[in-house]
Amino acid sequence: MLDEIYIESMIKKRFPLKSKRFSTEIGDDSAICKIKDNQIVVSCDSLVENIHFTRKKFTPEEISSRSLAVAVSDISAMGAIPMFFLNSLFLPRGITKKFVTRLFSGFKKTSKKFKISLIGGNISRSDSLIIDVTVIGELKKNKYKERGKCTNGDFIYVSGNIGDASLGLHILNKKRNNLQNIEERKLVAKYKNPNPKIKLGEFLGQLDYVSSMIDITDGLSIDLSRLINLNKNKLGAKVIWENIPKSKIAIKKPYEKHVEQYVLHGGDDYELMFTVNRKFYQKFERLAKIRKFRIFRIGEVVNGSKIILEMGGKNKILKPDGFIHKF
Amino acid sequence: MLDEIYIESMIKKRFPLKSKRFSTEIGDDSAICKIKDNQIVVSCDSLVENIHFTRKKFTPEEISSRSLAVAVSDISAMGAIPMFFLNSLFLPRGITKKFVTRLFSGFKKTSKKFKISLIGGNISRSDSLIIDVTVIGELKKNKYKERGKCTNGDFIYVSGNIGDASLGLHILNKKRNNLQNIEERKLVAKYKNPNPKIKLGEFLGQLDYVSSMIDITDGLSIDLSRLINLNKNKLGAKVIWENIPKSKIAIKKPYEKHVEQYVLHGGDDYELMFTVNRKFYQKFERLAKIRKFRIFRIGEVVNGSKIILEMGGKNKILKPDGFIHKF
Repeated sequence: MLDEIYIESMIKKRFPLKSKRFSTEIGDDSAICKIKDNQIVVSCDSLVENIHFTRKKFTPEEISSRSLAVAVSDISAMGAIPMFFLNSLFLPRGITKKFVTRLFSGFKKTSKKFKISLIGGNISRSDSLIIDVTVIGELKKNKYKERGKCTNGDFIYVSGNIGDASLGLHILNKKRNNLQNIEERKLVAKYKNPNPKIKLGEFLGQLDYVSSMIDITDGLSIDLSRLINLNKNKLGAKVIWENIPKSKIAIKKPYEKHVEQYVLHGGDDYELMFTVNRKFYQKFERLAKIRKFRIFRIGEVVNGSKIILEMGGKNKILKPDGFIHKF
Repeated sequence: MLDEIYIESMIKKRFPLKSKRFSTEIGDDSAICKIKDNQIVVSCDSLVENIHFTRKKFTPEEISSRSLAVAVSDISAMGAIPMFFLNSLFLPRGITKKFVTRLFSGFKKTSKKFKISLIGGNISRSDSLIIDVTVIGELKKNKYKERGKCTNGDFIYVSGNIGDASLGLHILNKKRNNLQNIEERKLVAKYKNPNPKIKLGEFLGQLDYVSSMIDITDGLSIDLSRLINLNKNKLGAKVIWENIPKSKIAIKKPYEKHVEQYVLHGGDDYELMFTVNRKFYQKFERLAKIRKFRIFRIGEVVNGSKIILEMGGKNKILKPDGFIHKF
């Protein structure tokens, strides 16, 4: 029978004490971690069965890996470096040893990829499978990026295709695996295995002319309204539809009908969106090119508390809308 | 209708940015906190509806307050000082604005009492109400206490009555509020509103002759086996029943029949249990008296991988047993 003692010993085998930065062993009351600076960055995020995933459509490795990726993305959105994580697991009755072991295989593989260490966690029973991940990061030279610090005229950038994950989710729900073509599979993978922009986040965090930053989790329009602090700062934005990077498949049949929905209001892309002081945008774009970071200028911050979308030369007002938890 | 936007604005009103140590506002991707030292202490703990509490028996304030207390207790069990916390809420459909507001009243009141700051969190929908709390603490002079660092001959102490919370839970489940007498109500309160030993933890964390420490969460016997690292260190313990502090009501009718179960294997007391190098025990007890800390010497660490319980002058072997999550 599966119990927390089995899980603890399985974790200890898989995550042996290695790092000099983490001096206690897993299993004590708390974890002690060494940090370089006198500031830390902390965030938590969670995945809930039947809300964010189903066990039918996701492997255990994909579930844990995704839970870690989405939490890490919040640290990168601050321009910080993710270092440590804790995972709280809520397991329904009847879950197998194999399932839990595979969850931890996902944590192991993904934490290695992200270069972060598991330092603690907690296990409880519950009605459905839930993973809550807390990530702790460090700042480099005490610098970080917040939302709402941009000013009129700043250019707005994103780090990659928008809408792919949302379209991937649509495909995942509609088509069986064996009916998906290669391009469709890529979109499904982008939804299932988000790739937080850790290196880019760290890079942008150090540039003083990057004025604001966020990661796109709930949808471009709603996250843009958060980035510029739409209601508070009396700032708005103008975004050019044609400049938003999207995958080719999204603008073809049968997906082109809903492409605006996916790109403007679909979430889960975990791309970074940020603003750059326009005096420095050429310098910034040159530097990004040298460093081989993909960045796309999609619009600019303007005065007036609204978001304008230019599409085919015509302007329309874009209302912030995206994924909001309702109870 | 209740949604996460309402909750976020309610939290911002209740937890305004105040502390110099927490420089970002609630609502950004991550929290930035200033810390004094280059080490941090981190732990997470959670409460699950129908496993750890029911909405029938607990007020919303009691649920959130308890979730914070149990997580804080882990930091105190390391001899560290709790500083910041994040709360992940999982809310079932149909939960009311009033209920969530009262949850945050509990967080507010208890965080003030514990002198810790809310720095972040997350909200998701789920099948049942779950609160997952992560607490971050600081060390004083880089000192901390772990489990399993004691040696043969060390004395074992606890910080208060053992079994009270477990008996309180029993009373809570058996008797309606209006049938409980004053003493019974105190036990129920100890279960519902655990009082982590924050000041004592900080004090013990600084004493070099305190060799090991843990908080009693799952039961005296099982937590003692963890404190001395029973299976690994070839150490055992001898505990004297009569020296374990317990409330008078526990040894009277009708509770005296099960008193051993409550005291030895009941959990939820959140008292500290720790070991002291016997060379220093008189010095330690004098100092604790001066500082007005309640501490009780209940036994000692011995050689041999077992726990012996002396009761009425007779020895018997005490098997570690307590609350273990099974799936």
